[in-house]
Amino acid sequence: MKLLRLCVASLVYLLVQGSATPQAKPNIVILFADDVGFGDLSVYGHPTSSTPNLDKMASEGLLFTQFYSSSPVCSPSRAALLTGRYQTRNGVWPGVFFSPSVGGLPLNETTIAESLKDVGYKTGVFGKWHLGVGKDNEYLPTRQGFDTYMGIPFAHDMCPCLVCFYPKAPCFDQCQTGTTPCPLFHNEEIVQQPVDLTEITATLVKGAESFINSAVDQKSPFFLYMSFQHNHHPQFAGKMFTNSSIRGPYGDSLSEMDWGVGQIFQFLKNAGIDDNTFVLFSSDNGPSFVRQIRGGNGGLLRCGKGTTWEGGMRVPGIAWWPNKIRVGRTMELAGTVDVFPTLMSLAGGKLPNVTMDGVDMAPILFGNKKSGRSVYIYYPSSPDPKLGVYAVRWNQYKAHYYSNGGLAPDFYPDEVCRGNYSLHKYNPPLLYNLHNDPGEIYALNVKDYSNVMKQIDDAKSAFEAGMVWGESQMGRGLNPQYEPCAKPGCTPFPDCCTTDGVSEILRPDMSIAFV
Amino acid sequence: MKLLRLCVASLVYLLVQGSATPQAKPNIVILFADDVGFGDLSVYGHPTSSTPNLDKMASEGLLFTQFYSSSPVCSPSRAALLTGRYQTRNGVWPGVFFSPSVGGLPLNETTIAESLKDVGYKTGVFGKWHLGVGKDNEYLPTRQGFDTYMGIPFAHDMCPCLVCFYPKAPCFDQCQTGTTPCPLFHNEEIVQQPVDLTEITATLVKGAESFINSAVDQKSPFFLYMSFQHNHHPQFAGKMFTNSSIRGPYGDSLSEMDWGVGQIFQFLKNAGIDDNTFVLFSSDNGPSFVRQIRGGNGGLLRCGKGTTWEGGMRVPGIAWWPNKIRVGRTMELAGTVDVFPTLMSLAGGKLPNVTMDGVDMAPILFGNKKSGRSVYIYYPSSPDPKLGVYAVRWNQYKAHYYSNGGLAPDFYPDEVCRGNYSLHKYNPPLLYNLHNDPGEIYALNVKDYSNVMKQIDDAKSAFEAGMVWGESQMGRGLNPQYEPCAKPGCTPFPDCCTTDGVSEILRPDMSIAFV
Repeated sequence: MKLLRLCVASLVYLLVQGSATPQAKPNIVILFADDVGFGDLSVYGHPTSSTPNLDKMASEGLLFTQFYSSSPVCSPSRAALLTGRYQTRNGVWPGVFFSPSVGGLPLNETTIAESLKDVGYKTGVFGKWHLGVGKDNEYLPTRQGFDTYMGIPFAHDMCPCLVCFYPKAPCFDQCQTGTTPCPLFHNEEIVQQPVDLTEITATLVKGAESFINSAVDQKSPFFLYMSFQHNHHPQFAGKMFTNSSIRGPYGDSLSEMDWGVGQIFQFLKNAGIDDNTFVLFSSDNGPSFVRQIRGGNGGLLRCGKGTTWEGGMRVPGIAWWPNKIRVGRTMELAGTVDVFPTLMSLAGGKLPNVTMDGVDMAPILFGNKKSGRSVYIYYPSSPDPKLGVYAVRWNQYKAHYYSNGGLAPDFYPDEVCRGNYSLHKYNPPLLYNLHNDPGEIYALNVKDYSNVMKQIDDAKSAFEAGMVWGESQMGRGLNPQYEPCAKPGCTPFPDCCTTDGVSEILRPDMSIAFV
Repeated sequence: MKLLRLCVASLVYLLVQGSATPQAKPNIVILFADDVGFGDLSVYGHPTSSTPNLDKMASEGLLFTQFYSSSPVCSPSRAALLTGRYQTRNGVWPGVFFSPSVGGLPLNETTIAESLKDVGYKTGVFGKWHLGVGKDNEYLPTRQGFDTYMGIPFAHDMCPCLVCFYPKAPCFDQCQTGTTPCPLFHNEEIVQQPVDLTEITATLVKGAESFINSAVDQKSPFFLYMSFQHNHHPQFAGKMFTNSSIRGPYGDSLSEMDWGVGQIFQFLKNAGIDDNTFVLFSSDNGPSFVRQIRGGNGGLLRCGKGTTWEGGMRVPGIAWWPNKIRVGRTMELAGTVDVFPTLMSLAGGKLPNVTMDGVDMAPILFGNKKSGRSVYIYYPSSPDPKLGVYAVRWNQYKAHYYSNGGLAPDFYPDEVCRGNYSLHKYNPPLLYNLHNDPGEIYALNVKDYSNVMKQIDDAKSAFEAGMVWGESQMGRGLNPQYEPCAKPGCTPFPDCCTTDGVSEILRPDMSIAFV
């Protein structure tokens, strides 16, 4: 009888076990904007931006009001996003990569793509890379865990740009010249040089659609890193969005990006996987005031790109996963450096065996709980080991130890944001309460906040004691021979670096699977 | 046969006519905030404000991104709201009324309340009046078309204030002293002196509930002007909201106002009239930077209260009427001066036979059409007939002819907002494109915009040619004897001006009908 009962119990156990369908791993999409500031989207208060798809995403998802990039400029911000480690650790400092840069995100760094591949994900990146090309494409995404890549591997003002708006409107102001025409890569092949900016977003979105559908066909979870070239200078847009916005060229460009966002959501829906896909929207850094009306808006925050004031590093952050993460707004502290551990938590992936700076955001996303982090670190655009971190946030308090001018023109009303504002050291530090003074206007008397300052000083000391600076990749310099060229060795260089005809991958009926 | 057909047709016509229930006149609610800036609400981008009821209102209604008050300070703004005429016409200039002011909104001006009473509305105002008290209460709301009034008839810092937060936390900084204690009026009777600020919002909301229910019982449409004392300095809140916000005292006060907003919506729902009620939320002017972290936030706009920069006069604006007005955001140009003609259009009321400055907003609310106005006029806090208007907006362009400093402290980063910034005349005017430069940072070269400048100059000239300045009510001076006193003629004045015991109207079971 006992044996029978044991037998039945075992059978029931096995049946119950068998009936539990393992939860399919969620698909993951990161929508990443370029130089879009805290105040640029309508859901963050801009009066003349039109971003209906991001508005919808926010209304169905969780909008962060205290979400940070890890750097006030592009390459280091992206390096931290993809590794979960500050740029100072992974070597992507000081400043940014250029078209002929020798360095790149070191190959021994583990990217999100690599970790997700290890647990069965298909991985693709479409758009701006900006983590190096190097000798023989050694730093392209295809060497960093991505199965598929399509895009310009750096900012599109780092190569001569001609036409920005449909049909033939020239790009505003100067792009950097004297280098090879802007290349569009597919994996490691240049498929269009010079790139057609009026078509690129449609092309990348189409590529993303193929990538998604291919992964779905293969019943594979996927990681899509949709890294828009928008809204970096020079702004551009195709036929649908040229002259579409009352905000002008910046608004046109933003609308095109928003359209791209909407397309991605539509593809998820078409494939029937929208309820099993986690989507995160953010930006690499604040608005670029050097571009004036074409440079974006930081909203109520102080200064913009290039500074460690809030406007330089606090960015939009919207998470979306219907029926999984909560809907609304959160004031909890988080940042792009937290994305890596969060995604590993969602996907059951492993963290690499190195010092990680990110903190899993799951308590904020799923539990309406407190953030796992109370400290955020602000490095300037060009960190210097002799100076270290410029500012530290601890809970609602932020102390500035140093600041440098930003990129704003000399007539900008707030002098600390101007390009000509020199490096300042603050002793005692400038202390603000960001919860009631997000604009960092009303400095607190540090004598009245000695306990707070001790917490901040201690956090700074502890962080810096644990900082092992990676070898500077920017320090490896530039080599014009590494500039992307569709016809290696051709003359006259660099003008000869062009593609002939239309690449197969860019044909209107582009049906090539991306995975 | 012809006769029969005619007869049948007539019968059908009459039956159809008879079956058409005439549309009941809509109830009208104006929710008006004090010193709440463009950047203060979460739906307008503030990172640490918590206003769930206003968020919900916005998600169900129409949010304006280019909505203006008529003045950068309180009394003139309210005068224009209630009359549809600029303060310079109706005499509410220069500056604001004080507790002992002799003048008030002239009785020969027609208010919204008067016009709505004429078409059968019950009218009530709860909260801040700030359009005069005068001799023997001659300018109180009860003399201006309101059946019911309850509130403090001016700003609550214009009288000695003691306790601001539950249970006994003192008010921050100084209130104006040397006058009678702050009075709470019910109609023309002082029912509490000094007023209990920790209870006042609950009291006013309860009063509004009685007013609504009474009108509904009488099957009468109503006009409720809910004029919160929030979020003016000194901020205050009762038990529910003291220490409730991470934004501090300003946030606590804002949350209490938001609670009040939510209560009003709940009362409409309870009475089953929410689908026949038009609700508008706005604010009287921008944030008061003199109060620093307790003074509100203008978001991405320049300067605040007291200036004709955008931060002084562009304010939140949210309209709500389920299934009637459209849901979403509008970038169309409108302002509080447009409320009067809009409400007359909704209620079938008559406009008074005087020059009106407002324009009916119905095309924006109902038709998703262009605004009826292309010009907006900016008068300073204290208009001067010799200087005239300080700035003019024409479509997206705004020209400043003059500006004065605002109320910001001397260390405020943007010098033009500081209190010590003197009157400046601009010749040529400072011209901005507000659609791509809402922060008024990047002045256009007027030589390149001569056509625009001509339009603006012409609009300014035409407007000023038609301006007949009303007799200055502030020019009538102050008379301490007019300060509200619960015991007229008592000694020692003003300290003796107090109420004894609890007024019937303030009893916890307050059941007195307000109409």
